Amino acid sequence: MLVETRNPLNIGAAARALANFGFARLHVVNPYDRAFREARSAVGAAPLLQAAEEFSSVADAVAECRLAIGTTSVGHRELQHPIRRLEYGARLIRRNLAQAPVALLFGSEKFGLSNQDLSHCNWLMRIPTVGQDLSMNLGQAVALCLYELARDPQAANASPEKIARASAAENEQITARLVEVLRHSGYIKRLTAATTEEKIRRLVRRLDIAGRDVPMLLGMLRQILWKVGEG
Amino acid sequence: MLVETRNPLNIGAAARALANFGFARLHVVNPYDRAFREARSAVGAAPLLQAAEEFSSVADAVAECRLAIGTTSVGHRELQHPIRRLEYGARLIRRNLAQAPVALLFGSEKFGLSNQDLSHCNWLMRIPTVGQDLSMNLGQAVALCLYELARDPQAANASPEKIARASAAENEQITARLVEVLRHSGYIKRLTAATTEEKIRRLVRRLDIAGRDVPMLLGMLRQILWKVGEG
Repeated sequence: MLVETRNPLNIGAAARALANFGFARLHVVNPYDRAFREARSAVGAAPLLQAAEEFSSVADAVAECRLAIGTTSVGHRELQHPIRRLEYGARLIRRNLAQAPVALLFGSEKFGLSNQDLSHCNWLMRIPTVGQDLSMNLGQAVALCLYELARDPQAANASPEKIARASAAENEQITARLVEVLRHSGYIKRLTAATTEEKIRRLVRRLDIAGRDVPMLLGMLRQILWKVGEG
Repeated sequence: MLVETRNPLNIGAAARALANFGFARLHVVNPYDRAFREARSAVGAAPLLQAAEEFSSVADAVAECRLAIGTTSVGHRELQHPIRRLEYGARLIRRNLAQAPVALLFGSEKFGLSNQDLSHCNWLMRIPTVGQDLSMNLGQAVALCLYELARDPQAANASPEKIARASAAENEQITARLVEVLRHSGYIKRLTAATTEEKIRRLVRRLDIAGRDVPMLLGMLRQILWKVGEG
């Protein structure tokens, strides 16, 4: 829910973030008329923006919601609400979202939410930025809150898709061809040949080559071998 | 690191997000000249933006970094890199950041990173948006990645600052005064007085009143009592 937003780009950015993270409803309260019209008529304006509902008061805009959360950069005001960090607040919101709609309020670019707006909120949430002087860009703040709501805590631990590594046989094929190239190039000296070959073999294993890269590497070595074998 | 960014607002938004989350260095590669000049000269441009270094190639821009990570919305291109979700990728980056600089690359608004840009990357990271058609706004994508890097996983579990609740004595004081008001108002009938009083007492406990709200509530009740006692 955007309260008294001035910049049409921010309304557009908020709508885009909603779509990005799978949220459907945008409420705007007393937007600067021109800003709202411009945002709506922007090329490629999201359907979500077209469907945004406009209200003339925060009370009306939050009416259907079980819970209203204000966002704040925690400035000078003496705030009378509990303030929760985004990481923790988002968890609480997720839990409530299962039961009833929750409103997330963002104030104007210049002044944030007024004390009157805040009086409609159950509690406040702040984005953990460094230092408190520099407020966040509105569009970015909206994106961060929605990202945190949609974030999958498990994903941080999940191991990524494994990429198949080269088999031992493939590694040995590469090693053999590389040794041949290096012998032709004069890198391997007769006296230390055995030790050098071992070193090369270990190096190739350390490279931890992906299976799908084997054909390309063999092709490159074959070509080099052809060239160094020429002379 | 911003590659071929077109919109000065996005360069500014990226710089602001860096400052918001405590990062210091912004590299720009081949920005549209006008965009970069405009972003730099914008009113209130961050010192960080003033200090941004400009490069003419990705290779130069990543030269000092141990690790270069490309960001992508995973579109149509057949990508040859491992792609990691932001939550997991950020963990890997944090681990590496302790040892050496890491570059995080963002492509142009329209085309993202080119295949050539990507060839300088060790792996890719994607923001887990809903659906893959709608790419993210550049400034928002930068903010999300930096937020995730700066995010404190512990904060999601930390219990928030506890607010002291009213003591039993205070709750009883409120109850007594409320009962008195309700008696004067004719809410409590003589025959059911005992049951009603119990109900009121339980209701007040359920309200779980904060200690700091006690004086105000008592004041309100005192005033109402004065009024209802008048008649």
